[in-house]
Amino acid sequence: MLNPAFQFKLQHTCKHTKARAGELDTPHGKVQTPRFMPVGTLANVKTVTPAQLSDCDAQMVLANTYHLHIQPGEDLVAEAGGLHKFMHWSGPILTDSGGFQVFSLSQIRSISDHGVVFQSPRDGKVIELTPEKSIEIQNQLGADVIMAFDECAPYPASYEAVAAASDRTTRWLERCLRAHARSDQALFGIVQGGVFLDLRRKSAQELVAFDLPGYAIGGVSVGEPPELIAKIVAAATPWLPEHKPRYLMGVGTYREMAQSVAAGIDLFDCVIPTRLARHGAALVAGDRWNLKNARFKRDFAPIDEDCPCYTCTNFSRAYLNHLLKSQEILGYTLISIHNITELIRFTKRMRAAILADRFVDQFSEFLSDGSQA
Amino acid sequence: MLNPAFQFKLQHTCKHTKARAGELDTPHGKVQTPRFMPVGTLANVKTVTPAQLSDCDAQMVLANTYHLHIQPGEDLVAEAGGLHKFMHWSGPILTDSGGFQVFSLSQIRSISDHGVVFQSPRDGKVIELTPEKSIEIQNQLGADVIMAFDECAPYPASYEAVAAASDRTTRWLERCLRAHARSDQALFGIVQGGVFLDLRRKSAQELVAFDLPGYAIGGVSVGEPPELIAKIVAAATPWLPEHKPRYLMGVGTYREMAQSVAAGIDLFDCVIPTRLARHGAALVAGDRWNLKNARFKRDFAPIDEDCPCYTCTNFSRAYLNHLLKSQEILGYTLISIHNITELIRFTKRMRAAILADRFVDQFSEFLSDGSQA
Repeated sequence: MLNPAFQFKLQHTCKHTKARAGELDTPHGKVQTPRFMPVGTLANVKTVTPAQLSDCDAQMVLANTYHLHIQPGEDLVAEAGGLHKFMHWSGPILTDSGGFQVFSLSQIRSISDHGVVFQSPRDGKVIELTPEKSIEIQNQLGADVIMAFDECAPYPASYEAVAAASDRTTRWLERCLRAHARSDQALFGIVQGGVFLDLRRKSAQELVAFDLPGYAIGGVSVGEPPELIAKIVAAATPWLPEHKPRYLMGVGTYREMAQSVAAGIDLFDCVIPTRLARHGAALVAGDRWNLKNARFKRDFAPIDEDCPCYTCTNFSRAYLNHLLKSQEILGYTLISIHNITELIRFTKRMRAAILADRFVDQFSEFLSDGSQA
Repeated sequence: MLNPAFQFKLQHTCKHTKARAGELDTPHGKVQTPRFMPVGTLANVKTVTPAQLSDCDAQMVLANTYHLHIQPGEDLVAEAGGLHKFMHWSGPILTDSGGFQVFSLSQIRSISDHGVVFQSPRDGKVIELTPEKSIEIQNQLGADVIMAFDECAPYPASYEAVAAASDRTTRWLERCLRAHARSDQALFGIVQGGVFLDLRRKSAQELVAFDLPGYAIGGVSVGEPPELIAKIVAAATPWLPEHKPRYLMGVGTYREMAQSVAAGIDLFDCVIPTRLARHGAALVAGDRWNLKNARFKRDFAPIDEDCPCYTCTNFSRAYLNHLLKSQEILGYTLISIHNITELIRFTKRMRAAILADRFVDQFSEFLSDGSQA
C-alpha cells in the first residue's frame, strides 16, 4: 500500500484553460505545482551545490537511474543511506526509469518484451534493463517518486512502431508495479504514443486503469516540432484523473511549459538551465542571452534586475562576460543559479496567476500560437 | 599620506621563535595574522563563490594584476567600481604587481631598467610593464594592499644575475612609490635575493629605508628545494621592522608555512588549495589525499571529521569520489571549499597557539627538520 504521504491536493483550476494549482505531498516535503524541477543527472545538479539549489527555491529535483546505475551503482547509493543522504538533498527527489536514456544514449543490442540489452557508453559493458531491474534500481536509490520503465520510440517513427512501443510500455507497467517493493515511493506511469494523438489517448486510458499515484507524459522533446508538444499533452490530459499529479518529462522552455500548464500539466524537468549556462547563455523573460557576446562587456547591470537570485543580486553581466571569456568555471555556476531560479520562478508565477484567476491574462504572450517567445 | 586605516597591531610574540600574532587593519576590514589568503587570479577564486569563500572564513583574498590587465583590463574593473565591487568581495583584497607572472608565464622580449616587454600568451599582443604601469594598473583595480613591481630571477640563476635583479627591484621600488596615487591602498615592497642569504639581507635592508606599510618576501617557491624557504625567510625577517606586516608570497604548504611563521611571517597566499582540488586532491592534516583513489569508493566518512566546512559537514569521501570519477565540476568546488578552509584553519590554529604560548609545542611536527609533513 502506498504511503499516505503521497497526497495531491488540487487547490485551484483556471476558468478558461485546464491549468491548475496544486500541492504534492511526499515523504521529503511538499511540491507546489506547477513547478519546474532541476535535473541532477549523476546525483548532483551540474556546478551547483544543494545549498545553492535551495536558494534557487528548488523543491523536487531529478536524478537519472540510467546514469547512476552505471556510476556509482545503486548498491553504493543504498549503502550510503539512499540518494537523499548521498547527494545531501533533503527535499523530494524523482528518479526516471532509465528508459529514455537507454533509447537515446546507448548502443542497443536487442529490444524484446523481456527488456533491453545495451552497451554502456562508459566502458562498453553490456547491460540489461528490464521493468523489474529498473524498479529494483529505483527502489535502491530511494527517491520519493519513481518512474515506470518505458519504451521511448524515436522521432520520426512509423505509426506501427510507435503503437508497438506504446503497448509494450503498458505491458511493462504491470511488471513494474509487481516489482515495486517500497511503500514510501510513488510509482508514476508514463504515457507514450509519439506524435500520434489517438495513440496518446489510448496510452493514457490504459494507464489510468492501474490507478497510479501520478502520471507522466514521456517521449516528447525528442526532435518533433515544438508546436506539437502542447497538442500531444492536450490529447492525453483529458483522460488522466484530475486528482493525480501530471508530469511532462524533459520540457523546460517557456512557451511549451505555459501551453502545457494550460493543458493541465503540474510538473516539468529539463537540463536546459544548466546546459545553457555551460554555453554562457542566460534565460531572461522568455529569451536566451549569450553573455559571451561583446555587447555585455561593459554592461554593469545584473542579468535581470527583477531576479532575486544570488547571481543577479551580486554580479553584473560584465563580470559574467569576463568569467566566460576567461573560461572560469564560476561563470557556469553563477549562470546556472540564475537559469534554475528563472525557470522555477516562471512556474511559480504561473501558479500564482492560476490561484489569482489571471493565468490567461498574464501568460497570453506564451499561450497564443503566434508568439515568438 | 597613507590612510590611517592601515594599522598593524602586534598582539603577541612567541617566546621560543619569532612567530607573532597580529591584526592588520584595512579600509575593507581586519586580517588576523598569521593568515592564509586564497588566490582569485582572474577576480574569482576558481570554482568558489564569494559567499562560499566567506564560509571558508577567508579574510583577505588575492587577485593578479598581470591576468586582470590582459583580461578584462583595469579600465573595465575601474568602470565597474573597482575590484571589490566587480568580484563582489567586500573584505580586504591584495593585488600582486604582475612581476612574478611576467617572468614565469610570458615570453619576454626585453628587460631593461625601464621595464619589461613581453608577449601576452593570450593573444600574442606585445605588452610593456614598468614600475609606473604596474602601480597605475593596481591603482585602477583598487585593492587594499598593492605590491611593488619586482624582477623575479629564475631558479637556478647565478649570484650576479640574482644580485642585479634584486638591485633593480630596489630601484623600481622608488619609482613605484612615486607613481602610487592612492592613500587608501598600502604599497608593500618585495624582498628579492633568490637563495643567496646575503642578497636577501641586503634587499631587506634597502627596502626598510623606504619605511613601507608592509614587506613581502618574493621569488620563493620557484623551484628551489623547499627546505631553503625557511632559511631564506629567516635571512630577511630580522631586518624587517617588527611592527609592519610580513607576507611570504606564493607559499601554502603546511611545513613551509609553519617554519615561516616561526621566522616571523604573517601572511601567505597560494593557488594550491584550488589547484589540488581540480586534480581531486584534498588537504588533510599535513597530507594530500587523492580522492579519485579506489579506496575512497565506499568510504562514507567526510574528508575530515573535525573540519567545519560545508563539504565536510555534508558530503562523504564516497560522494566526492563519485563526482570526480564522473568529472562533475561540483567535485572541484566541494574539494576547493575544504582545501581553502583547511589552510585557513591551519594558520588560525597557529595564531591561537601563538596567543596561548603553545606554538612550538603544538606545531613541533612541522618545525623540526626531520618532519615528513
